[in-house]
Amino acid sequence: MNTYVKYHPIGFIHSPFETIENMPIQPGGARGIPGSIELFAEYQPALQDLNGFSHIYLLYHFHQVSGVSLAPTPFLDSKPHGVFATRAPSRPNPIGISIVKLISIRENILRIENVDILDGTPLLDIKPYIPDFDSIEEVRIGWLKNSAQNVKNHRSDQRFK
Amino acid sequence: MNTYVKYHPIGFIHSPFETIENMPIQPGGARGIPGSIELFAEYQPALQDLNGFSHIYLLYHFHQVSGVSLAPTPFLDSKPHGVFATRAPSRPNPIGISIVKLISIRENILRIENVDILDGTPLLDIKPYIPDFDSIEEVRIGWLKNSAQNVKNHRSDQRFK
Repeated sequence: MNTYVKYHPIGFIHSPFETIENMPIQPGGARGIPGSIELFAEYQPALQDLNGFSHIYLLYHFHQVSGVSLAPTPFLDSKPHGVFATRAPSRPNPIGISIVKLISIRENILRIENVDILDGTPLLDIKPYIPDFDSIEEVRIGWLKNSAQNVKNHRSDQRFK
Repeated sequence: MNTYVKYHPIGFIHSPFETIENMPIQPGGARGIPGSIELFAEYQPALQDLNGFSHIYLLYHFHQVSGVSLAPTPFLDSKPHGVFATRAPSRPNPIGISIVKLISIRENILRIENVDILDGTPLLDIKPYIPDFDSIEEVRIGWLKNSAQNVKNHRSDQRFK
């Protein structure tokens, strides 16, 4: 195999967030915030039956994040953690995941809600959210156990710019 | 921005599955199946504090899938659906997601369970699974509503080879 993989954006995500500072840091902190997906027209057939799902995963490229930090200090703590133990964007491969609410699909435009994503972000994939596959009970969440719920109030700053 | 993004594998996933046929089609059908991650040594610092989490997302490249189908017939149905309404691997950008159980970390080797991934798969990212961010209640799951639970018994065939 090659030493890298190459992906092409399938469209762009639009949101009210035009700068990387002062954004919600997870969809849980972005309840009700509307956005949209402008899918390139060639992929419109791939949307068939997606409207049956209330929630979708978006996989996207953190295009405004510069540089990798293997041990960043994430927004929800004052101490550094290994980047794979965080959702910080300064990852070796800066791929973001958000689960957003799907409101409607009209041709190649998807209206979505709970959007914690920067305006203009290149979209790589859409997958349906399926609790039987994706919802895990009885988990441990390490360093986040006292602060995971704080996503509702926390906003980003410019540390990953 | 460029018209593509380039990612580098951060390691490889090892599993008992050496061919793309007769595999579990989701982690829910792979309960207890062991595997491992061989992370490239340079990324070992990024694992710090990950051992506090019981479950992790793996993002990986479907390296054995050839070709894109915008309307595949997924394993869990006999009718085609738009690929973005499925978890089929024949996606415009063939990125897979699995939530696996993290058993142990020793230097750059992670032992994992519930592995529905082909042996030798290039790994792109590891993220902690955090119910406050990732578990959604009150969802609709469209065409899958009568068959999502069948993942426990279903196996793959060679349709995406």
